[in-house]
Amino acid sequence: MMTSQTQNPFYLAEMTWPQIEDYLKNKDSILLPVGSTEQHGPTGLLGIDFLTAFDISMAVSQKTKTLVGPVLPFGMALHHMAFPGTLTLTPTTYIKVLVELIESLQKHGFKKVWVINGHGGNIAPITTAFCEFLNFDQKMDLQLINWWHLEEVTLYEKEVFADQNGFHATCGEISTTMYTHEEVYKRNPQIKLQEPGAKKTTWPLSPLEFRKHFPDGRMASLPSLANAHHGKIIFDKAVDSIVRKIHK
Amino acid sequence: MMTSQTQNPFYLAEMTWPQIEDYLKNKDSILLPVGSTEQHGPTGLLGIDFLTAFDISMAVSQKTKTLVGPVLPFGMALHHMAFPGTLTLTPTTYIKVLVELIESLQKHGFKKVWVINGHGGNIAPITTAFCEFLNFDQKMDLQLINWWHLEEVTLYEKEVFADQNGFHATCGEISTTMYTHEEVYKRNPQIKLQEPGAKKTTWPLSPLEFRKHFPDGRMASLPSLANAHHGKIIFDKAVDSIVRKIHK
Amino acid sequence: MMTSQTQNPFYLAEMTWPQIEDYLKNKDSILLPVGSTEQHGPTGLLGIDFLTAFDISMAVSQKTKTLVGPVLPFGMALHHMAFPGTLTLTPTTYIKVLVELIESLQKHGFKKVWVINGHGGNIAPITTAFCEFLNFDQKMDLQLINWWHLEEVTLYEKEVFADQNGFHATCGEISTTMYTHEEVYKRNPQIKLQEPGAKKTTWPLSPLEFRKHFPDGRMASLPSLANAHHGKIIFDKAVDSIVRKIHK
Amino acid sequence: MMTSQTQNPFYLAEMTWPQIEDYLKNKDSILLPVGSTEQHGPTGLLGIDFLTAFDISMAVSQKTKTLVGPVLPFGMALHHMAFPGTLTLTPTTYIKVLVELIESLQKHGFKKVWVINGHGGNIAPITTAFCEFLNFDQKMDLQLINWWHLEEVTLYEKEVFADQNGFHATCGEISTTMYTHEEVYKRNPQIKLQEPGAKKTTWPLSPLEFRKHFPDGRMASLPSLANAHHGKIIFDKAVDSIVRKIHK
Amino acid sequence: MMTSQTQNPFYLAEMTWPQIEDYLKNKDSILLPVGSTEQHGPTGLLGIDFLTAFDISMAVSQKTKTLVGPVLPFGMALHHMAFPGTLTLTPTTYIKVLVELIESLQKHGFKKVWVINGHGGNIAPITTAFCEFLNFDQKMDLQLINWWHLEEVTLYEKEVFADQNGFHATCGEISTTMYTHEEVYKRNPQIKLQEPGAKKTTWPLSPLEFRKHFPDGRMASLPSLANAHHGKIIFDKAVDSIVRKIHK
Amino acid sequence: MMTSQTQNPFYLAEMTWPQIEDYLKNKDSILLPVGSTEQHGPTGLLGIDFLTAFDISMAVSQKTKTLVGPVLPFGMALHHMAFPGTLTLTPTTYIKVLVELIESLQKHGFKKVWVINGHGGNIAPITTAFCEFLNFDQKMDLQLINWWHLEEVTLYEKEVFADQNGFHATCGEISTTMYTHEEVYKRNPQIKLQEPGAKKTTWPLSPLEFRKHFPDGRMASLPSLANAHHGKIIFDKAVDSIVRKIHK
Repeated sequence: MMTSQTQNPFYLAEMTWPQIEDYLKNKDSILLPVGSTEQHGPTGLLGIDFLTAFDISMAVSQKTKTLVGPVLPFGMALHHMAFPGTLTLTPTTYIKVLVELIESLQKHGFKKVWVINGHGGNIAPITTAFCEFLNFDQKMDLQLINWWHLEEVTLYEKEVFADQNGFHATCGEISTTMYTHEEVYKRNPQIKLQEPGAKKTTWPLSPLEFRKHFPDGRMASLPSLANAHHGKIIFDKAVDSIVRKIHK
Repeated sequence: MMTSQTQNPFYLAEMTWPQIEDYLKNKDSILLPVGSTEQHGPTGLLGIDFLTAFDISMAVSQKTKTLVGPVLPFGMALHHMAFPGTLTLTPTTYIKVLVELIESLQKHGFKKVWVINGHGGNIAPITTAFCEFLNFDQKMDLQLINWWHLEEVTLYEKEVFADQNGFHATCGEISTTMYTHEEVYKRNPQIKLQEPGAKKTTWPLSPLEFRKHFPDGRMASLPSLANAHHGKIIFDKAVDSIVRKIHK
Repeated sequence: MMTSQTQNPFYLAEMTWPQIEDYLKNKDSILLPVGSTEQHGPTGLLGIDFLTAFDISMAVSQKTKTLVGPVLPFGMALHHMAFPGTLTLTPTTYIKVLVELIESLQKHGFKKVWVINGHGGNIAPITTAFCEFLNFDQKMDLQLINWWHLEEVTLYEKEVFADQNGFHATCGEISTTMYTHEEVYKRNPQIKLQEPGAKKTTWPLSPLEFRKHFPDGRMASLPSLANAHHGKIIFDKAVDSIVRKIHK
Repeated sequence: MMTSQTQNPFYLAEMTWPQIEDYLKNKDSILLPVGSTEQHGPTGLLGIDFLTAFDISMAVSQKTKTLVGPVLPFGMALHHMAFPGTLTLTPTTYIKVLVELIESLQKHGFKKVWVINGHGGNIAPITTAFCEFLNFDQKMDLQLINWWHLEEVTLYEKEVFADQNGFHATCGEISTTMYTHEEVYKRNPQIKLQEPGAKKTTWPLSPLEFRKHFPDGRMASLPSLANAHHGKIIFDKAVDSIVRKIHK
Repeated sequence: MMTSQTQNPFYLAEMTWPQIEDYLKNKDSILLPVGSTEQHGPTGLLGIDFLTAFDISMAVSQKTKTLVGPVLPFGMALHHMAFPGTLTLTPTTYIKVLVELIESLQKHGFKKVWVINGHGGNIAPITTAFCEFLNFDQKMDLQLINWWHLEEVTLYEKEVFADQNGFHATCGEISTTMYTHEEVYKRNPQIKLQEPGAKKTTWPLSPLEFRKHFPDGRMASLPSLANAHHGKIIFDKAVDSIVRKIHK
Repeated sequence: MMTSQTQNPFYLAEMTWPQIEDYLKNKDSILLPVGSTEQHGPTGLLGIDFLTAFDISMAVSQKTKTLVGPVLPFGMALHHMAFPGTLTLTPTTYIKVLVELIESLQKHGFKKVWVINGHGGNIAPITTAFCEFLNFDQKMDLQLINWWHLEEVTLYEKEVFADQNGFHATCGEISTTMYTHEEVYKRNPQIKLQEPGAKKTTWPLSPLEFRKHFPDGRMASLPSLANAHHGKIIFDKAVDSIVRKIHK
């Protein structure tokens, strides 16, 4: 039986409260992976954004011996709601959730939270949540890392995918999950996309307008360029970049 | 590298939106696992409630070919907040989150949601969220399953653990995760508890009162009775009970 | 002229603030009756849930010299909204109301609140409100009593009404108000129901579905079995049970 | 046994849903009494505002054969919170409650709601709630009646109490309840106030400032001038004024 | 180029934070002008309510050397929403905005806020916001001034416009802006209204009902009686009245 | 007397509702200027962000004959709250305000809103508000323009101020208001800053941390480099850039 069991001794969900109490005697930082459950074109997984955030965070956690929390798999994906399988919170609710998770961490004595984010639509509400939390005399070091925006990652993606990386269901994120979820891509239907998705247009769009402009969900990307080899490189670059930021 | 990859072809996060569109042509139900991240005594994992909800839901999903969504790992755990590692939403926010996830599912055409719950503190807010959602002319079949309350599960737990199963950090839930997360329990500190946790008292309690009454977090349970053998039996009984409900 | 005047010297609404100040020098508990205004089948009164909660609380108050607050006559009755006369709050608003009433009591120094509830649909939101209130370092003893769930009451109702007590507009609650509101039942239309209401079905239901499944509002009950004699016994059992809990 | 039973065949709480359904075939208006539970000086009852609203509404209901709902006994009494026994909702919650009650009435087909109010502090939030409800294409006739502001009432109070009627715990409202709650005033402590309460000052005030400025809770009133004789006249004038408005 | 530059050295928006810090060493009061953006009949400006509140506040500020904040141009104008150009907040949001602005002022040490209001529809929510803010142990002197309700203003308007002043788009407020915005009225279309607007009717009304009852937006007013001469007198009377209140 | 009167015939506040009705027959776009009231170092005006947004929007409006709404002078400035004079909304309230203003515009038939923003802290909540509004089947073209981010503006500022432009209280925004508010800068205290403000550090910061890191409020800027000459060029570049976007 395969279960949700992991091999990371710094994964909060697989630890006990006395272990967290011990951890807090020496360290005060934690990784909080967040993503989204939303369409990623005809071939990309609905869970890409939270699966990558979680897998990258787990690798960073092990390399830096930093605690990592459970992944929040639901984010702000309203604009993808015309594609079945997308699950979304409203921005206001998402902000409340983030503020309350940070408050929980603060109560226990954490002083630094690395929010490792896998979804572009989350950036504005996460930034907003940080402001909402940091009222008057609060003290908390809140760092947002959008892994696909890390310099090394964008440089590599530009080099190998150029313009066909696209803006949603990108070759980069699909490659990353082809590496981490190799068997899944094998068992899923094999679809060969020949043309990149529709070009980016006016923004923002409501769900119905989004589907009208981007009928298969991709935004300018050509996922057939994606593969597990690139995925491993991107994954490692993302992990290493974050590790360096933590060690700084 | 171990990743979050699973082997369940009905796990929404590892599927594409066209696959969900296809699924909805024939079926309209989905499993939504929810739990909590909260202390479970000196030996139990912080993630027990969502790990069990997820692992049980995944097994049910495979046996019944029913779609299963990502697990919501955060719930209503305010009363455990005096123990480090517990992460909680306020009940009001938790209700909003549930309502919005159900709304997302409804938009796509789902007609039946099985909320598979692993945490007692979630029951009141989930029930409340169902009411909040079912306004006037809504139509949605919302079923809450608290896996540890299933008749076969409670009968077995009573038989093997009797009074020492307890009310929180129970032998039953710890056994279940000793089965699903065997390696985790091996790598974690080995603690032998000789006495059951403090007896149940007045209820409800605030976080500080809770810790005062139940200093190590357990409520009347003696987790040293737990083991993976019992865990497998409980796990299978929970899965089979839910499968039968779905097939009914 | 008949007015809302009562004979209970411990009814807060008929006392002055200096009397409450005096009371708080010796005691710190209060009864807070809550109910609902909702359909109770073709013969039951719309106010049954709050009238019983209030009348029972008043009797308990006099017997125990415990302060009793005004009754909150509106609760969570969304599912009854397809029947005219039902008035409801959304669960979220109802939770806010309860939290703010408890906060008011706390400000004055009350340490124990007995919420005497007459409506099943209120249980989840009241429980949720208790959690919402009991944040971190609060101290407040919050006790929910659903009078029709008291052991002596259920035993008696089972004995005299068996399966025909039903789940809504029960013989038990109608009997109770036939005792407390004898003249009202005499002046209201005399309707003889021959068959029990529709059997319980899937749950929860939206208002329109509820009315479709339970066309006259009753759930499996046969109110023609109800009478004031049973009502007096039930009423007294409820009062005595609560009095014993308070004296414990 | 005295219970909450009344003699008004138009009291919604003592009617059944089919009776309301019948009523709505011919009429579409309802009286909704609202008040507050708050200090009324050393001699006035905490429930004055809702008891008067309810008793007056019941009399109006019988005379006009207009349906009357249960009384909402809690209102906006934040500024009285430094006196024990006062129970308050925040204005925002109170507005939500009112909007939801009006929505409930609208769902059943009511077209006119007479909110019969007994408390000055409720006026702004009730007015606000009416605006909140009357969004764009709504149609609902919402009438707020503050009974103590009715012209005949104020003229009479001015005539008999002059300046000593005051602004809170007024001779007028205390007289009214001395008429409706005669036995209560007899059983309560007999206190003879010789001087009127402190004069009105800057406004609004927070709870602590209020108690500082008005140490015994009265605002410029001399309740020893109150009696049941005046109360009967005031009560009748209030009832007759509202009856005339309804018949207009 | 004409810009938003003013000549008032006490206008907070044109000062620096060290200047405010200095001001607070000697004084602790501030003027906060608030209004609305809403239709004012066929000839009145949409901004009348906030333009008058701002211009009057600025004049008062200069005469009394009292700080004046920026004007909040949006208020509670739901009932005017059937006329293009009206912009509104819901009452609940408007209350939140006011409470947060007062909180900001309190944090800096202001002890007295004169809210100078130009719109009738704001009165109930502003009053409500004051209550919401003045929780328990707050200390803040909050004064609402509705400039058109000032005694000298109403007396003069009654004298010169009598019944034709009306209730909305009044001769008084249009005169005032004909004085302050003379060139604007010259460049706008010249419309001569011969008849007063429709008489006042039942109240409150939803937007669509409002437009049905008052087809051109005026309520009983005859704006052709308005002129800059009256406007100057009204403006000066409003300013002088407020100045006197501040100097008291 | 100087008043708030302007010379722009397309300024909504100085128009009548029939003029807006006419405008909407031919055009459906509007400019909505938004800013903040917050500290801008020892010499910058507290109103810079909304004054520039308004003055730039008014110039754009005249050049393009596009309607412009009143400016919202309050935004998300929590992090500046340790400096007197700053007024802020919480992000959540600010989002609600924006959504309701856009809803108002939509009700009247506007199809395109250009939000002209003068404050960096508003970007995340405005973006979030756009998402919140664009639910499912909405149709609305929402464009956010942060004027100081326009390419021509940033290029010029880099050229003339280089690194000393800074990140808050920048030479660019102070120059712009030295041009639009020349007399104000002359009448305000003349302060010569010799050194740039403290360098940028970790981000985000709470108010107290902000003031600790940036004691005089500037972030790396040297405002003594600012002057009205540069201001005119920057102002014109901003206006021209936006005009071009609108004409595109």
